[in-house]
Amino acid sequence: MKILVINCGSSSLKFQLIDSESEQVICKGLCERIGIDGSRIVYTPEGKDKITVETPMPDHNKAIELVIEALTNKENGVVSLDEIGAVGHRIVHGGEKFTKSVVIDDEVIKAIEDVSDLAPLHNPANLIGIKACQKAMPGVPMVAVFDTAFHQTMPENAYLYGLHYSYYEKYGIRRYGFHGTSHSYVSKRAAEILGKDINDLKIIVCHLGNGASVSAVKNGKCIDTSMGLTPLEGLIMGTRTGDIDPSVVEFIMKKENLSVAEVNNVLNKKSGVFGLSNELSSDFRDLEEGYLNGNEGAKRAVDTFAYRVVKYIGAYTAAMGGVDAICFTAGVGENSGFTRKIIIDGLGFIGASLNEEANTVRGKEEIISNPDSKVTLMVVPTNEELAIARDTYALCK
Amino acid sequence: MKILVINCGSSSLKFQLIDSESEQVICKGLCERIGIDGSRIVYTPEGKDKITVETPMPDHNKAIELVIEALTNKENGVVSLDEIGAVGHRIVHGGEKFTKSVVIDDEVIKAIEDVSDLAPLHNPANLIGIKACQKAMPGVPMVAVFDTAFHQTMPENAYLYGLHYSYYEKYGIRRYGFHGTSHSYVSKRAAEILGKDINDLKIIVCHLGNGASVSAVKNGKCIDTSMGLTPLEGLIMGTRTGDIDPSVVEFIMKKENLSVAEVNNVLNKKSGVFGLSNELSSDFRDLEEGYLNGNEGAKRAVDTFAYRVVKYIGAYTAAMGGVDAICFTAGVGENSGFTRKIIIDGLGFIGASLNEEANTVRGKEEIISNPDSKVTLMVVPTNEELAIARDTYALCK
Repeated sequence: MKILVINCGSSSLKFQLIDSESEQVICKGLCERIGIDGSRIVYTPEGKDKITVETPMPDHNKAIELVIEALTNKENGVVSLDEIGAVGHRIVHGGEKFTKSVVIDDEVIKAIEDVSDLAPLHNPANLIGIKACQKAMPGVPMVAVFDTAFHQTMPENAYLYGLHYSYYEKYGIRRYGFHGTSHSYVSKRAAEILGKDINDLKIIVCHLGNGASVSAVKNGKCIDTSMGLTPLEGLIMGTRTGDIDPSVVEFIMKKENLSVAEVNNVLNKKSGVFGLSNELSSDFRDLEEGYLNGNEGAKRAVDTFAYRVVKYIGAYTAAMGGVDAICFTAGVGENSGFTRKIIIDGLGFIGASLNEEANTVRGKEEIISNPDSKVTLMVVPTNEELAIARDTYALCK
Repeated sequence: MKILVINCGSSSLKFQLIDSESEQVICKGLCERIGIDGSRIVYTPEGKDKITVETPMPDHNKAIELVIEALTNKENGVVSLDEIGAVGHRIVHGGEKFTKSVVIDDEVIKAIEDVSDLAPLHNPANLIGIKACQKAMPGVPMVAVFDTAFHQTMPENAYLYGLHYSYYEKYGIRRYGFHGTSHSYVSKRAAEILGKDINDLKIIVCHLGNGASVSAVKNGKCIDTSMGLTPLEGLIMGTRTGDIDPSVVEFIMKKENLSVAEVNNVLNKKSGVFGLSNELSSDFRDLEEGYLNGNEGAKRAVDTFAYRVVKYIGAYTAAMGGVDAICFTAGVGENSGFTRKIIIDGLGFIGASLNEEANTVRGKEEIISNPDSKVTLMVVPTNEELAIARDTYALCK
């Protein structure tokens, strides 16, 4: 079966067409600037060069039409429309309602709407994508795969904040966690690579990309993760603060005469390694270059980022009562041996020993610890689209 | 020399008179409801019963007069005024300016005023106490002992948030940490009890009271601590949230139609174990009783509190590259074997082994780990007043 995977944002839409048997990507692409001047679709059919079509895209319905046209057109198409057996949608927030992927029906759509106030930028965009696909491909089964679902196994003492309990009961204020599809995929893959039963493993997954989070996966279940009510909490990210004293919000509001929404914008968009490096870059490739060239801001940003990761690894080692494997994934985790080394150099307390030659790996599965390391260090590239396609196939085959 | 130790709040003033040679408390007491109806002074001269005097106390000048009267009156007094050789003041926030205690002069007063925006509730009250003492005891040397000073050895990667660096440069937004006098006293005392050089030790101090914080003390220097810009960050406390997703501030503002100051009040006064237990209590004695009687809120509050402590111990073990001793201090840390056990049961990853009989100790120095424990677990009662008196004596003798 051919599975179309859709990741729909407010003005963009990423897609992949995946063959469920071979698990090969048949075509992948991106619609940019939906509803904005200068919109375009960029896609790469398997074995062909990248194709860019600049064309008006007033809304997501038009974007989906263009995706289908790209997949099915005579010249570069890879399938006929009736070969697309199912669509898998990435949904950011499933609240407490969704603990796993589900086939989309009216009730599911209603439930995704119901938790939209927990992800006001993302869930409405995800819903637009669902509705546009339903319109363009009537009768094709669709599946919702939630970023939060994998973390729903967290126990109460990990997901509750030290807030009045009524805020949890009334508004659902708690830790949800995100990147769940990635944490799930990487932890399962790590167990496979190690040839061990995931039910016997304590795994820490470091998903280090522009957004970044850590999770503690004990016996195959997430027991804690660093992102919270929103993706702002936890690690220092490309442009997000991660953990700060919550009093900082009011402090900056007063000092800069900003509204709370404006401060939240600062915490989400102007902070992280970008802010710490005095706006040198949010991209770790630039920061690595700066670091090696003696740029103080780059060194400050990367060292502070890495120290936070080390503390989370320590916290989750404590939470699980030990750790068998630490996995690095996503853009930085998969590709930056430089950043991995700075983190791993801070892990002496658990007897981590880095194989520096293996650590030169970029973007492929590799064990990067020495044989005598007391914890296995691994690079495990994430593949959220494949994970979404697998869940979709499992529910629609 | 007799040292008067003053801890001055906005409507209260605690005092102790300590003999610098014997280190005995000669008298201690408290002025309550300064500037409010129903004010009173309560004090206990050494070897005598507690004395309560209800009397008008319109301002801190009057409170200090009453303290001096209490210390020197014919009937219950313990000294003559000229025997008081120096006064030590607890000051909450010293910013980055003060890395140790200092003799108070006009420049120091100005510097304490300068960082008052970092502790707007505390520093102004501390300054009122200094000025009232200067008026009542002209010519007596006075010393400022800062809650933040011990933590000033933290490296940049521990004290910086993932914020734009300009906020640190312009406004001093960073982690400062509090309870420094306690963390310093307890870590030094722990080294003495162990008969080891503090320069060879990695110590974690858990100051668990109504306010609570953890610090990592490596070779006698604080390298990280859980409180931040303000005492709101870190552990779950009596009524404070500790760490939360900073987005929660805006979320609650919108849901409850509150101002940011009102939300901060909620996070500081209505949260913590008090809020988690659905207002059962902020007092761990009540929570322990509730827990043992099957009260769900009490169990939820204590378990969530303890789990957070475990994670900080893990994080700081990682940060120091190991840990030799974990010290419990302050109200809960010194007195609640019940809570200590719940925490220590989560520390298997570092080979902590609790001696349950020793753990029945309340309020006195005791090693509570078994001989084969890989980390030494200790109860070390804090004594901030004695630490203030020692610093004061050292600078004024």
